[in-house]
Amino acid sequence: MMDDRISIADKLALIGEHWRPGIVGTYNENKIVVVKVQGEFEWHSHAETDDFFLVVSGHLSIDLRDRTVELDPGELFVVPRGVEHRPRADVETAVLLIEPLGTRNTGDDGEGSALIAEERWI
Amino acid sequence: MMDDRISIADKLALIGEHWRPGIVGTYNENKIVVVKVQGEFEWHSHAETDDFFLVVSGHLSIDLRDRTVELDPGELFVVPRGVEHRPRADVETAVLLIEPLGTRNTGDDGEGSALIAEERWI
Repeated sequence: MMDDRISIADKLALIGEHWRPGIVGTYNENKIVVVKVQGEFEWHSHAETDDFFLVVSGHLSIDLRDRTVELDPGELFVVPRGVEHRPRADVETAVLLIEPLGTRNTGDDGEGSALIAEERWI
Repeated sequence: MMDDRISIADKLALIGEHWRPGIVGTYNENKIVVVKVQGEFEWHSHAETDDFFLVVSGHLSIDLRDRTVELDPGELFVVPRGVEHRPRADVETAVLLIEPLGTRNTGDDGEGSALIAEERWI
């Protein structure tokens, strides 16, 4: 491809529904994902991988069991593997995520969740 | 730590010299790095890993042997493993990089380079 740079803003413009991530690229065995979120996700964890969150716009709260991490645009947080977390946003918030290809958005125990989102490229 | 979110702007404020990356966090076995660059780096490649570039400010040109990828703020590019590349910036440019811990900035053949930068946390 002659133009395989990725514009985060252009990719986010393709995202409609909240909590429905779109894959925009890969880095080694990881997917680079953008997502728009608002409201409260569900508690989950990933035993085998850290979870990279970079806020692009809005404001993201990541509840952990003992505290909450508050992220403004340009701030990032890596949820360590195995740590239960619940993303939450009062306003519509855009996030860049990195996690291994095949990682389920609802976590290891989220197989039957209504919030499950299949992997899709945008 | 009670506040382990990472502000890219705060970390960049700690960076002085060009082409001297600072590690700000890890994601699995990868380092998350910020760097300020200006001028021309040297051609290099990494046989074992892709190289993730996200431009924060300024403008980054990544020369490949057959073309150049031009990146404005909010745009990212993943140099595939093994592909020779040369980052270059006319103006001072801030970049977020992700690559495996232990990856040499000057690439597989850059052991004797004057541009080599040891890994350091900021």
